[in-house]
Amino acid sequence: MDKKIALLGMGTVGSGVVNLLRENEDLIHSSSGVRFTITHILVSDMVKTRTADVSGIRVTDDITEIENADIDLAVEVMGGIDSTKDIINKFLKRGIPVVTANKDMLAVHIDELEETASENSAALYYEAAVAGGIPIIHTLQHSLNANRISKVMGILNGTTNYILSKMTFDGWDYNDALKDAQAIGYAEADPTADVEGIDAARKTLLLARLAFNKKFTLDQVNLNGITNVDIKDIKLAESAGLTLKLLGVAEDLEDKYNLSVEPIFVDTKHQLANVHYEKNAVFVNGNMIGEAMFYGPGAGSYETASAVVSDMINSAVITAKAKNIPEEKGEPATELPDSAYYLRFNGSLSEAESYLSSQDIQFEVISTKESALKTLKISADALQKIQNTLAPAAVYKINGAE
Amino acid sequence: MDKKIALLGMGTVGSGVVNLLRENEDLIHSSSGVRFTITHILVSDMVKTRTADVSGIRVTDDITEIENADIDLAVEVMGGIDSTKDIINKFLKRGIPVVTANKDMLAVHIDELEETASENSAALYYEAAVAGGIPIIHTLQHSLNANRISKVMGILNGTTNYILSKMTFDGWDYNDALKDAQAIGYAEADPTADVEGIDAARKTLLLARLAFNKKFTLDQVNLNGITNVDIKDIKLAESAGLTLKLLGVAEDLEDKYNLSVEPIFVDTKHQLANVHYEKNAVFVNGNMIGEAMFYGPGAGSYETASAVVSDMINSAVITAKAKNIPEEKGEPATELPDSAYYLRFNGSLSEAESYLSSQDIQFEVISTKESALKTLKISADALQKIQNTLAPAAVYKINGAE
Repeated sequence: MDKKIALLGMGTVGSGVVNLLRENEDLIHSSSGVRFTITHILVSDMVKTRTADVSGIRVTDDITEIENADIDLAVEVMGGIDSTKDIINKFLKRGIPVVTANKDMLAVHIDELEETASENSAALYYEAAVAGGIPIIHTLQHSLNANRISKVMGILNGTTNYILSKMTFDGWDYNDALKDAQAIGYAEADPTADVEGIDAARKTLLLARLAFNKKFTLDQVNLNGITNVDIKDIKLAESAGLTLKLLGVAEDLEDKYNLSVEPIFVDTKHQLANVHYEKNAVFVNGNMIGEAMFYGPGAGSYETASAVVSDMINSAVITAKAKNIPEEKGEPATELPDSAYYLRFNGSLSEAESYLSSQDIQFEVISTKESALKTLKISADALQKIQNTLAPAAVYKINGAE
Repeated sequence: MDKKIALLGMGTVGSGVVNLLRENEDLIHSSSGVRFTITHILVSDMVKTRTADVSGIRVTDDITEIENADIDLAVEVMGGIDSTKDIINKFLKRGIPVVTANKDMLAVHIDELEETASENSAALYYEAAVAGGIPIIHTLQHSLNANRISKVMGILNGTTNYILSKMTFDGWDYNDALKDAQAIGYAEADPTADVEGIDAARKTLLLARLAFNKKFTLDQVNLNGITNVDIKDIKLAESAGLTLKLLGVAEDLEDKYNLSVEPIFVDTKHQLANVHYEKNAVFVNGNMIGEAMFYGPGAGSYETASAVVSDMINSAVITAKAKNIPEEKGEPATELPDSAYYLRFNGSLSEAESYLSSQDIQFEVISTKESALKTLKISADALQKIQNTLAPAAVYKINGAE
């Protein structure tokens, strides 16, 4: 079976797709029976040097040339939000399936695109949009589909995980680790979307939508990035048997939903505590499977292309009946469950200790010198009171190895 | 869409399937549009007390009653090898898809069954046969399909992993840990298939077949169980930064294949070293994705039912073009790559040390008291010579965190 592909975008992932298809062409054909031919590539800059061989392919910077071309599948790896959504909508309206890796766009427009796809019996695939090469989207759609999922959480951003790993293993401070991440190409010149947790929030939204079959908007994700993480926090975590990780968390709290991205102190025995540097992992709690985790590369040219091309193959060999599209919005949880917390204070702990004792909140001092303690279990309300009263310099949730 | 199901077998997994379908019926219907009705259940003992509600279902011990019944799907969770294969063949010949969790049978008959399935445009699903609830079969079929896979290895048997974890964490010896595993129901009265690695070998074969698209037979799997593991080995592993795990390994060595089940010293930093007790995990190396790991429950009533029911849903909603069935047999590798090894001797090390020095083999002594050392890198030939010359009491491969 031959499939004609339009590839929109020729950056890191686009080049990976071209290279992968050339390198594994025979393998893919022999195992799936599909042969892909890229007929068109959309680029933004016609004169740029390519890192992939595009001989025999029509390369253009004019999208209209591709919009009406005779293709079987469009693969969007160019980025952009509203204008890219419009382009994808046009393909879907022609009944042409679309594979996209564009999490920024999907986090805003996925509901609209899936509706268009459904109305036109096309399909939208986006494995590469969450956790790079890890097949978590397909797994939630097709393998954990007998489960009521109560929680999905993960290390969804390789840049911040790299920074925290450098701080943990090499004792670097935040700024040095960030500069190192920028030097080796893991972090952008403007790292805001990564370090503030925005990138992880987009992925958390996409995971929550599939896990709970509800619609969510980005403003529902409570954001707390890693810019205020101090090397002290990491060292104290270690001394308490904990590892600091930036986690995207989506929880079903009795049909209301709590979505967040925040630094969390994870028990070192927890699977997620052993996911380091640029690696990603997604942890799922389902009512039948219990706990499961999916670990792998969060980014990279070939790694992400692995996910894009698996979508391409599946679009050709699987004729899945469309999954029901969520109609309801997921209501935000107003009451959050009790949790343990790590609190760091600049200065003496005695004021904090006597306040916590007066409130009957149990705690452990994990370092008097660094003025840090961990509360054993408090409510969200009590935490709010502590924040108002004592203004701790850092507050991180502790995730025991439940 | 309504689907009529015949359930063959009503043991741990069968009861899990009945209970899961009742508990998550609405969820499954709303997300996939499918409603399953179990119309027939085959049991071996008509008077046994059930742990699931079978009211309204035709329960019989007569397979012929089911073989010609009006059903859409057969789910086989009863065990048995040749006679069960014949039953499954009959369903497939009628064009009825079959879901099975039966690894013992598949390890012998999968090639024949897939041929029957293909000839009759039926399909055979077996997610639950390998690593319980972990969706590794579907992942290899549909998510890592753009990769040339060079290695699949995993902790594929929860019983032996439980025993090794008890020895590691509680310092128990092998026999006590085995008795404990039997007492809590993880190990059978006759534990041979688990502790000798036979169960893991069946799963290794099924993984290798999918990963490399070749046929294999069970006698190609080199077997070495855990019955000779000494608590000393585990303690020495720890002191060298290693953890002892029983791994099923399938490697592509330049189009020849090495399949084995053996205790391996795994670097504690490796993802697999952190998979404990009854948990399973499968680690995959692909030429595009690099390294990925899939972690979860290896057994259990609901956990395995999660995999069975995901197959049931997929059989209803995915019309996948059949994957090409391997025609070639995977040739066994004759030359194994160099590896590091752990060697334990009963008695003094000096003879071993001088022999290894005379052979120019580099080694480290990790305990003089317990007479153990680790070689840094030796060939399979050199290992054979060492075994013949020195007859070490234990020999385990060391898997660095490559």
